[in-house]
Amino acid sequence: MRLDDGLVVMSDTRTNAGVDNISTYRKLHVFRPAADRIFVLQSAGNLATTQEVLDRLSHDLRAPGGAESLATVDEMYEAALYVGRVSRTVVGEHRDGLMSSGADGTATFILSGQITGAAPDIMLIYPEGNYIRASDDRPFLQIGESKYGKFMLDVGVRAHANLAVAAKLALASMMSTARANLSVGPPYDLAVYRNDALDLEEFRITADSVILERLLELWEKHILAALHELPAVSDLDALVGTSGADGKSGHEFGK
Amino acid sequence: MRLDDGLVVMSDTRTNAGVDNISTYRKLHVFRPAADRIFVLQSAGNLATTQEVLDRLSHDLRAPGGAESLATVDEMYEAALYVGRVSRTVVGEHRDGLMSSGADGTATFILSGQITGAAPDIMLIYPEGNYIRASDDRPFLQIGESKYGKFMLDVGVRAHANLAVAAKLALASMMSTARANLSVGPPYDLAVYRNDALDLEEFRITADSVILERLLELWEKHILAALHELPAVSDLDALVGTSGADGKSGHEFGK
Repeated sequence: MRLDDGLVVMSDTRTNAGVDNISTYRKLHVFRPAADRIFVLQSAGNLATTQEVLDRLSHDLRAPGGAESLATVDEMYEAALYVGRVSRTVVGEHRDGLMSSGADGTATFILSGQITGAAPDIMLIYPEGNYIRASDDRPFLQIGESKYGKFMLDVGVRAHANLAVAAKLALASMMSTARANLSVGPPYDLAVYRNDALDLEEFRITADSVILERLLELWEKHILAALHELPAVSDLDALVGTSGADGKSGHEFGK
Repeated sequence: MRLDDGLVVMSDTRTNAGVDNISTYRKLHVFRPAADRIFVLQSAGNLATTQEVLDRLSHDLRAPGGAESLATVDEMYEAALYVGRVSRTVVGEHRDGLMSSGADGTATFILSGQITGAAPDIMLIYPEGNYIRASDDRPFLQIGESKYGKFMLDVGVRAHANLAVAAKLALASMMSTARANLSVGPPYDLAVYRNDALDLEEFRITADSVILERLLELWEKHILAALHELPAVSDLDALVGTSGADGKSGHEFGK
């Protein structure tokens, strides 16, 4: 999420190669390649590809003589293009092996961060190597299993949440996804970046955290409270007519 | 949803053949084939297939001499199998035409209803012609774009909602889906069935309904209220340690 005060990013840690092969890997990685910049790279997709991409990014940072790296790029979009190229290179080098087993070796990334002199930004990097920014109307990006938790993020960013609320919102969105889909699960890694800080706070929320239990309780309570406040569907004084199509009795509600 | 007091079913009406070809069709159809039974058939998938299936079901009901139909089946599972056979027949007869254009002609159905002498039930009928019931733990079924709204249904049925609350819950689940996905949209058709009534109340909620506007307001209010009540992620007294992996500062939260 890109917010007025900064950035909030969250990743789960579950990976799977089928339901009988589930593991826990970190998918949120922080790079501090130089004093004037900080990056968070989140990944979804093929685990081997994301690990090799991370290894190559680190290798490039250690390489002598100013080879292109996260330390040398001048702008966020150049960093995104660089990560995209590394990602394509990794997949390209394993294409023959992957094709022979029918595996999809691609990975998708979200690059967040700031380079001094420009505003913080978040960018989604496609397996094809190109990127998009978050829109100003819906200033968040999702990769991986993005459907279940989208509505909650949508509601949150509309309300111009501050960083503390946004962190809780990210957790709520993640929890609603995890409850609906086995391929998403705790621990959850959270990083909160305040504009121009060039440093960030990191948290890991484990499965037995009291905050997750409390969140689920609050969620049930407030969903039911909202439904309680809503007028009954059959009670609307906005009843505008009855529809008798196909001989059925019915009520049609409008403005 | 299969609830203690009866059934609540809801369908949207949006169909699309690409984003530039969006139409409104009813996807919730009521059959009253005999005095001792009532069925609601909801569809997702290929529109031509679902229309032909509906036409054939009606045709079979008009056919003289006790041909198999929704009027002749003795149990809900036989009704589901019958609809599954009709669905497979329709797709089978158009297979050559569909294959030549690469189109997927299949459809998925939810059959809800009651035949006197047995409890009301809901069943999901696959394109393959077989079916599943809703589970007792999560007594709801979804077809079509089922991901976005699942969490809300899950929370609702856990709370053993009554029919009036469940109707509002269905609307809330549908609204959260529609806000996240263009292929889902109003009007929404709702039917509420009370156990053993052998009749049902039908409602249509249009895009300009005050209830939709009110629901979105309540939703935002209560999501933010729940987040407000939740302790801050960085404030947890359940702090159990710091993780220094990769030289990163961090906090790990557990019980």
